[in-house]
Amino acid sequence: MTQIQALAATQPKGKLEPFTFDPGPLGPEQVEIAVEYCGICHSDLSMLNNEWGLTKFPLVPGHEAIGKITAVGEEAKFVKVGQTVGLGWNSGSCLHCRPCLSGDQNMCQNAEATIVGRHGAFATHVRAHWIWATPIPEGVNLAKAGPLLCGGITVFNPLVQFDVKPTDRVAVIGIGGLGHMALQFLNKWGCHVTAFTTSDSKAGEAKTMGAHDVVNTKSPEALNKLAGSLNLVLSTVAAPIDINPYIAALAPRGRFHTVGVLPQIQTHSFPLIAAQREISGSPSGAPSTVLTMLDFCARHAIAPVTEEFPMSQADEAMAHLESGKARYRIVLKNDLA
Amino acid sequence: MTQIQALAATQPKGKLEPFTFDPGPLGPEQVEIAVEYCGICHSDLSMLNNEWGLTKFPLVPGHEAIGKITAVGEEAKFVKVGQTVGLGWNSGSCLHCRPCLSGDQNMCQNAEATIVGRHGAFATHVRAHWIWATPIPEGVNLAKAGPLLCGGITVFNPLVQFDVKPTDRVAVIGIGGLGHMALQFLNKWGCHVTAFTTSDSKAGEAKTMGAHDVVNTKSPEALNKLAGSLNLVLSTVAAPIDINPYIAALAPRGRFHTVGVLPQIQTHSFPLIAAQREISGSPSGAPSTVLTMLDFCARHAIAPVTEEFPMSQADEAMAHLESGKARYRIVLKNDLA
Repeated sequence: MTQIQALAATQPKGKLEPFTFDPGPLGPEQVEIAVEYCGICHSDLSMLNNEWGLTKFPLVPGHEAIGKITAVGEEAKFVKVGQTVGLGWNSGSCLHCRPCLSGDQNMCQNAEATIVGRHGAFATHVRAHWIWATPIPEGVNLAKAGPLLCGGITVFNPLVQFDVKPTDRVAVIGIGGLGHMALQFLNKWGCHVTAFTTSDSKAGEAKTMGAHDVVNTKSPEALNKLAGSLNLVLSTVAAPIDINPYIAALAPRGRFHTVGVLPQIQTHSFPLIAAQREISGSPSGAPSTVLTMLDFCARHAIAPVTEEFPMSQADEAMAHLESGKARYRIVLKNDLA
Repeated sequence: MTQIQALAATQPKGKLEPFTFDPGPLGPEQVEIAVEYCGICHSDLSMLNNEWGLTKFPLVPGHEAIGKITAVGEEAKFVKVGQTVGLGWNSGSCLHCRPCLSGDQNMCQNAEATIVGRHGAFATHVRAHWIWATPIPEGVNLAKAGPLLCGGITVFNPLVQFDVKPTDRVAVIGIGGLGHMALQFLNKWGCHVTAFTTSDSKAGEAKTMGAHDVVNTKSPEALNKLAGSLNLVLSTVAAPIDINPYIAALAPRGRFHTVGVLPQIQTHSFPLIAAQREISGSPSGAPSTVLTMLDFCARHAIAPVTEEFPMSQADEAMAHLESGKARYRIVLKNDLA
């Protein structure tokens, strides 16, 4: 492999156009993956628009890749050529900082992100440190698995990190790319699941995905009825929201957990103190948690609800995502080169 | 017992004056305690000033009582006449709501507080449900034990609730009535302990109480040096503070925990998400945790640093507390009646 065919934007909000680059020699701990499918995540759009000021152009987006390993560096472990793997937000971690040594490679102090300062998976091939190339178990539909590697693990990870119990009552804010997977995970986890949405049109589907109740959060009365009842509220939205009605909906020892980047968290300490409530956040998961999630998906036939586009139509797919009309996650099927 | 001699205020910020009342028949699950010592807590002052709009006048303050049981109701269990017990913020809980059934009687949905709508322990006698009259173990100095029953348990409780580990690095914000006890608990708990204070004059004493480091938080540089290093920041202050430098000081999986009523909690979600950090609060503890704390105090000779006043000088003592000069907790010795 000397050349990779990809799609890249050369400026913020730019069109994704064919882009060929020489990836250089494969690192000793790296693997190269021939991309078969790649999901689109909201953060691909944020990076394309340079919303976080992190983007280097040309940008090749894509960090929910599924494909076969075509080459392994001489120090790579655990995976081998020909194996089908997935790659998500992270493509590297140092393995020697304290979080890495503790199994928290997703919080590595020297983490490498798949599309930050390097080229992602809207391409024939993508590279990663072997630890981030997660083998996909039997029984997982490869055409739909991509979104599990970033969106999926982001909502699965808190269930593991915070020991969510099958006896818990859990609500999910935002029934979109992440939320629709959270409903499925939580239902199979054994929880009572409430979907919080502002879109009545999603109510029926939310129930199909595993919600026992659907509450339109435009109604303060509906939310008030839940006061003191929920063990976990999992927020997947990135828009400004008032978290206080959700805090009030928490039972004693309840947790408001966000995986979406809320611009502001503003509350009073009293509702936290009186009922020992918690507010927290988390990033996507460590490799061991990704493995656990994939096993759980295989066991319970959990899969994202996807719309498929050919990768060559990535621009149209990104516009569809930006319009808010994706139901619920887009996957690109590779037709490059 | 037909009459109780007490000290009461008849209006907000009023003087505490001799007040005699008939407590009526003892409830079947209640006990009556002859008060020997009573600590003064900041919430006595808040109630006296009716800061929370909860106060009924005449108000008899006092909810850190130590004394001997003089009468027990016919359904009271666990304690008996002549036993030395302590009483804190709560004087009753229903024992049948879900928190009570779970051992979280401190979060009882029908909780009774010792000085809210009833008379406290600035008095010859005070009453409580038997579950809240905690036997004081051998080896605890009764003249200093009062403050453990509210201030002490409030900072001890989070160590139990959140499984703080002896290997953790913990900082305490505010070296006052609560904070000075937190330093002692944490030192004996095995933690590395940092005292955060704005008062250089407390640095030497903070070390005596168990702090390994003292950081003056007026210095942004000193706080910046701690970035990413602390597992727990325990805030005991009730003043408006910017929590963001403390959040930044937390290690991955770190917790900012407040037991002081902060008027506002304002932060961005990103530092929580990136490093799986948590913000939380908790009230004073359940009876089982009070027992555990008292055993821990006896084992490690932990005691509040106190200044003693005769109870008849409660007004002077309250003024001393309000001046911020108490080092570090005031105890009234009963000389009423």
